[in-house]
Amino acid sequence: MSLALAPTPKPKKLNILGATGSIGRSAEAVILGAPGRFEVGAVASGRDAKNLARVAKSLGARFAAVADEASYAELKAELSGSGIECGAGPQALEQAAVAPADLVVGAIAGAAGVKPTHAALVAGLDVALANKECLVCAGDAFMRTARKKGVKVLPMDSEHNAIFQALGGEPMENVETMWLTASGGPFRTWSAEKIAAATPEQALAHPNWAMGPKVTVDSASLMNKGLELIEALHIFSIPAEKLAVVVHPQSIVHGMVSFADGAVTAGMANPDMKAPIAHCLAWPERVATSVRRLDLASLGTLTFEKPDLERFPALRVAMAALRAGGVMPTVMNAANEIMVAAFLNKQIGFNDIAREVEAVCEEFARHNATAAPADIEEALAVDHIVRESSRSRIAGVGR
Amino acid sequence: MSLALAPTPKPKKLNILGATGSIGRSAEAVILGAPGRFEVGAVASGRDAKNLARVAKSLGARFAAVADEASYAELKAELSGSGIECGAGPQALEQAAVAPADLVVGAIAGAAGVKPTHAALVAGLDVALANKECLVCAGDAFMRTARKKGVKVLPMDSEHNAIFQALGGEPMENVETMWLTASGGPFRTWSAEKIAAATPEQALAHPNWAMGPKVTVDSASLMNKGLELIEALHIFSIPAEKLAVVVHPQSIVHGMVSFADGAVTAGMANPDMKAPIAHCLAWPERVATSVRRLDLASLGTLTFEKPDLERFPALRVAMAALRAGGVMPTVMNAANEIMVAAFLNKQIGFNDIAREVEAVCEEFARHNATAAPADIEEALAVDHIVRESSRSRIAGVGR
Repeated sequence: MSLALAPTPKPKKLNILGATGSIGRSAEAVILGAPGRFEVGAVASGRDAKNLARVAKSLGARFAAVADEASYAELKAELSGSGIECGAGPQALEQAAVAPADLVVGAIAGAAGVKPTHAALVAGLDVALANKECLVCAGDAFMRTARKKGVKVLPMDSEHNAIFQALGGEPMENVETMWLTASGGPFRTWSAEKIAAATPEQALAHPNWAMGPKVTVDSASLMNKGLELIEALHIFSIPAEKLAVVVHPQSIVHGMVSFADGAVTAGMANPDMKAPIAHCLAWPERVATSVRRLDLASLGTLTFEKPDLERFPALRVAMAALRAGGVMPTVMNAANEIMVAAFLNKQIGFNDIAREVEAVCEEFARHNATAAPADIEEALAVDHIVRESSRSRIAGVGR
Repeated sequence: MSLALAPTPKPKKLNILGATGSIGRSAEAVILGAPGRFEVGAVASGRDAKNLARVAKSLGARFAAVADEASYAELKAELSGSGIECGAGPQALEQAAVAPADLVVGAIAGAAGVKPTHAALVAGLDVALANKECLVCAGDAFMRTARKKGVKVLPMDSEHNAIFQALGGEPMENVETMWLTASGGPFRTWSAEKIAAATPEQALAHPNWAMGPKVTVDSASLMNKGLELIEALHIFSIPAEKLAVVVHPQSIVHGMVSFADGAVTAGMANPDMKAPIAHCLAWPERVATSVRRLDLASLGTLTFEKPDLERFPALRVAMAALRAGGVMPTVMNAANEIMVAAFLNKQIGFNDIAREVEAVCEEFARHNATAAPADIEEALAVDHIVRESSRSRIAGVGR
């Protein structure tokens, strides 16, 4: 086997889209913890000008872009005297995405992240991806651009990153099954009746990960795992029937790959986003991090169970969209966004989320063509339309 | 990431040293289960002429060699009319090892396997290694030849193979810790007093693997894991201080690698030697096998615990030899062979094995140079001398 020593790598140049969010802050910690390994060209965020200016200075960036044009004056003032240039609005965001770099971190949350991240691909830059919508809403078009431009999309989600590490570069034809683990969320052991009556407060109490409210609710319904299956399909170019979910409450094993000879490789780590972020930023090298080291003897026990599609119908709905392909993941994701927001607003119940998402998907399929969106713009247009029609349903949902 | 389809591979040509043992039989099953993927040139075994002739015919080999010259007539008779050539004795064994091939399976058990397996390296052939002594008795010299000849040594042991798969080709400098799992053997939960009184029958009742008596006793004492640490040091060129053992009674996770960023990759499979054998035979491709697929949800629970060096002093003794390096692993392995045989003969008690092995090591170090043997011959000479001196101790061991 090859045991050659890797040469000491040159600093890798990064642009960070979504520098003030949870991924951005973890990336900052990884970069500051590995002096000499990274250089940051541009940073961007949605509207948090104050924190964007702080991280731009902390990382020595040359350019900072804020999506919200109303935040420009504050950003400019915060950066005054720093020598860091800045801009605001969609064009500034795209300017940050395509600044000269070895790797662009795509961590702007939601549909807002799709266009600037896609712009990095168009510019021929590799992307470390933490934005779900690029793949769930616009996966076919997004990955087509990556293939056309010959650039890499590295998975920054803990599950996909674990699978990427477990794959170790093996060709997909050797893969029999690709497993994503799910913590099972706060309702894993709850009865169907109790889940039906779950409140937003209960859904937001995730056992292992601290995340935003939307993804935390998705973790409680297992919709999050369904969205991740769709991401995996695109990022690994793997057929839907080779994708599987296993519930693993300790969130130590994040993903696994089963091969044709019966071997299984697994990617593990303590649940800390700095581990997959560091892996993507340094790949194919590694950098040391402060992530707490895994000590299986101290943990003692890892457990695994089948996901229950009866109590967690959102996963069943997502798997149907995964298998249907075409536009259905785009539709399902948009409907889920709206229904989760309605649940968090106490307009609908927890089980209404999956039920209404399924109803939106069925209605869309009845009245529309179901081919995959031809490009990013079409995907975002479908997303917009489905959000509107989903919103219009909410008042009619029986509690 | 690279998702290119691998081309359909040409048949890989194999020589199988140790074709009638447990590894050989599993290799035969893998080869017969993957038609068109392998061609077998030569097969060899110790003395089982009848089974050697059977496997030679079953695999379509051209040459069969039996180590024991007294078995030549039987082998010749069994192969009569088959067109398969045959030979007997050390030179015939070496002839089998160096017959033209892409990969030589080194699965002759014990010290008898060292010279023919080494001959394959000298001939510039890659080796899939299942013989412990090549690395434990003569590791420095064996791997020096492999490096000099630029040939690969692929690990066929389940633990090392799992680590090899988990590594995925990463440079060793990225590795923080390399973990071998141990089932803990039949005495894992026994008290020190009960272990001290253990009989050969009790030591031979391994919970997960069906193996020969010597390695089964080594599994009960955890010496086997110590020998595997020494193997890992040589095969992966990793320093002793990066090697660790964790007890994992279910024998599902076979090995793990911890990286500098906090990520851990693991190699898993149901305990069936066909999985690592198939991986080595096909590497860098894969072949389908009949190995029962891993279903973690059905298994439910994996547990891990620290090895107890008080109740299992053989592992402590082996780790000391690992860290001492030089000739000490050779000495320790030879002493252990003799003491395990004496235990199986009911000449000494279970705890006497580790105690006497430690005493032999200490005595050797007091009276001899401790540099690593300069070559295979010197390693085998030390092995012979230490066996003799170990045998001479047995009568004096207080029961």
